[in-house]
Amino acid sequence: MSDRLTSAHDRWVDRDAAVVWHGFTQMSTYGANRPVIVDWAEGRELVDVDGRRYLDAISSLWVTTLGHRVPELDEALRLQIDRVAHSTMLGNGNTTTVRLAEALAPRVPVSEPHFLFASDGAAAVEQALKIAFQYWTNQGVTTRTRFLALGNAYHGDTIGSLSVGADGFGTDIFDPLRFQPLRAPGYDDPGWADTAVALIAAHADELAAVVVEPLVQGAAGMLVTDPASVERVADACREHGVLLVVDEVATGFGRTGTLFASEQCRIRPDVLCIGKGLTGGYLPMAATVASRRVYEAFLGPDLSEFTLYHGHSFSGNALAAAVALRHLELFDELEVLANVRDRARQLGDALDGVARHPAVGEIRRRGLMVGVELAPPTDGLRWGRRVCAAAVERGVLLRPLGDVVVIMPILTSTPDEIDRIVRVLGEAIDEVCCP
Amino acid sequence: MSDRLTSAHDRWVDRDAAVVWHGFTQMSTYGANRPVIVDWAEGRELVDVDGRRYLDAISSLWVTTLGHRVPELDEALRLQIDRVAHSTMLGNGNTTTVRLAEALAPRVPVSEPHFLFASDGAAAVEQALKIAFQYWTNQGVTTRTRFLALGNAYHGDTIGSLSVGADGFGTDIFDPLRFQPLRAPGYDDPGWADTAVALIAAHADELAAVVVEPLVQGAAGMLVTDPASVERVADACREHGVLLVVDEVATGFGRTGTLFASEQCRIRPDVLCIGKGLTGGYLPMAATVASRRVYEAFLGPDLSEFTLYHGHSFSGNALAAAVALRHLELFDELEVLANVRDRARQLGDALDGVARHPAVGEIRRRGLMVGVELAPPTDGLRWGRRVCAAAVERGVLLRPLGDVVVIMPILTSTPDEIDRIVRVLGEAIDEVCCP
Repeated sequence: MSDRLTSAHDRWVDRDAAVVWHGFTQMSTYGANRPVIVDWAEGRELVDVDGRRYLDAISSLWVTTLGHRVPELDEALRLQIDRVAHSTMLGNGNTTTVRLAEALAPRVPVSEPHFLFASDGAAAVEQALKIAFQYWTNQGVTTRTRFLALGNAYHGDTIGSLSVGADGFGTDIFDPLRFQPLRAPGYDDPGWADTAVALIAAHADELAAVVVEPLVQGAAGMLVTDPASVERVADACREHGVLLVVDEVATGFGRTGTLFASEQCRIRPDVLCIGKGLTGGYLPMAATVASRRVYEAFLGPDLSEFTLYHGHSFSGNALAAAVALRHLELFDELEVLANVRDRARQLGDALDGVARHPAVGEIRRRGLMVGVELAPPTDGLRWGRRVCAAAVERGVLLRPLGDVVVIMPILTSTPDEIDRIVRVLGEAIDEVCCP
Repeated sequence: MSDRLTSAHDRWVDRDAAVVWHGFTQMSTYGANRPVIVDWAEGRELVDVDGRRYLDAISSLWVTTLGHRVPELDEALRLQIDRVAHSTMLGNGNTTTVRLAEALAPRVPVSEPHFLFASDGAAAVEQALKIAFQYWTNQGVTTRTRFLALGNAYHGDTIGSLSVGADGFGTDIFDPLRFQPLRAPGYDDPGWADTAVALIAAHADELAAVVVEPLVQGAAGMLVTDPASVERVADACREHGVLLVVDEVATGFGRTGTLFASEQCRIRPDVLCIGKGLTGGYLPMAATVASRRVYEAFLGPDLSEFTLYHGHSFSGNALAAAVALRHLELFDELEVLANVRDRARQLGDALDGVARHPAVGEIRRRGLMVGVELAPPTDGLRWGRRVCAAAVERGVLLRPLGDVVVIMPILTSTPDEIDRIVRVLGEAIDEVCCP
């Protein structure tokens, strides 16, 4: 430990903890949990203040798609710097953002889409909830004021998104501030779709919308479902005239093997939320995508009550839009989806060995979204935390959700990198769980 | 009109309206309201798709501080591109964000501050509300679940920030989703502080926090108050043990003549929200700043319920942090605050003439935040909209709040630019209101 005490790492951790408050982080144990203090990055590796390299196996929290310092994305950003960083989208426009929306339009699973941009993914969800709600009031329907959401759902941390989210992470303490949706089971219940369909039928006249994460409930620990179940819920929405809000902030941009998980589910949401990978993980940008039918319910006289009075200052930020636009092109040029499918197959095969480990309960995955659920014999062992720390010591950055180790590789990962992640995970589990 | 029909402007407006949904904008009249479609920018001017130049007198909606394409900010961004665009702050750190927080720490009006970053300003407010709420539950106090907010308040558009906001812009349709704060009057009531102080005293045991915009309620139409009133409310909070949340998303970073309006009010908030000008208006970044006392209430065992389980993916984004860091240095190097005070004085003098115009009701201002309230003789004349359109035709970009014309010049504006804004505003008022 003696050389660690005087390392750049320790000095930076002290500086960091003195002024920064990290989200989802108990700050009293921040330093003890061996944070990586990133100084620069290269490809799929992060480099810390002591020059140590870490394979970014969590995609810098589920956002990085093509890697760090991608020459084409860097170039797009540099070119936009020479045009304009930002101009407002409130009542005005900018060419880069229009180009981005035009490029996204044929790629999103939404019919004749319009894009309302924000920066935080949670804000995209908030926009979706308000759009779905006002869609009805604009048509004189004042009874459809509720949402149906799922158990284990996570849609972000602002009060609205927290309201449709479930009670994980102690969010129930905020109940006095949250509105209460109807709640169907989550993906850990094989009958979730049956119940959801029944609830939609029984409560259609009070429901503004149903809100789902398609295929994977990520933050809940990578709970997965089958495409047909999601499709059945979407069918029930259409049958009963309830709007379908689909949150693809985590699943969008290739994570599950298609550009959007909705494609595998064969669904066309009325409102779609995207974020994270939209800019390749470079810059904050999110968007709420409304179908033409939804959008048109907001058209009316100038300054009228039909307008959506909602807007974020940095909506449609030109720098972020320039990166997002080039990112979408690169998805095709680099044949990213083909690599995701190949690496997902490889990762699945490689994890078969890990799955047989006695310390592992279950492995759940869709594409390159994976949860390895550990099975500690008693509470309080903090296996998730400790296994990830052991992986970080071996140069692979992982971060757990409770006792679920999340593997979220960058989409352009190589076969060797996938093998390394699985090998290091196995070693870390051995070290922590079978000492 | 014939040349306009084939202009780049019209083609871009059509492309824009086909795919983009603009916030706070009635899209059916988007094109008719003569939007500026920005292609690039230079200094304090935006340049549209036909090469027409517009003086940016709204700071690209209240965010731009030093102008567009500031060489030093561009350079800071370019340097960070060569290090890393983004790495996660969840449980990990990055050097640029630490440096930013260190640089901000002695400048914010918060004691021994910790910075929790987000991207949208509304998310910073949501974080503040949750921090203030959980501050009490972490100490076993379960009765302090309410907030006191002001009439006419605007804190953002997500459900939590909308809840502490007042009912402007038809937000009351979302009442089934909003929680209800206690409500004191807004700055249009000279007795607002008396009532607020009385409400704090009467309801202290149920109040988690009081939420205020110091000095100026911007989105309400630049309603202003005096520093002493804000200070009295802060004193009442301290006296009764209620937290004070101050939203400086709009007033922060020099707008009112000091770096933060809290300085003029001689207050030290427990929780501060910043955004907009934080990056000079370049990139989405916001932050919630907690005092040490508040922060320490969240310290506890690892993985415990004391933790703030809240975090946005792009929190502490390194590209935005690099720009924000250089921006803070430039504030001193360019002596920006001195220019704000000089230009504010000049603007105030120049507006004396406008104030005497029979079509003008009242002019309210603090620093370079100005609202010129028009006084139309009857409803439905849309004077605010039409006066701003007439100014845009003359090459000065303005955007109203109802019948209040907002003047929000870039902080580095020259004397000639201030004169031009006032001259054009006068011409626009003459044209629209005295035809």
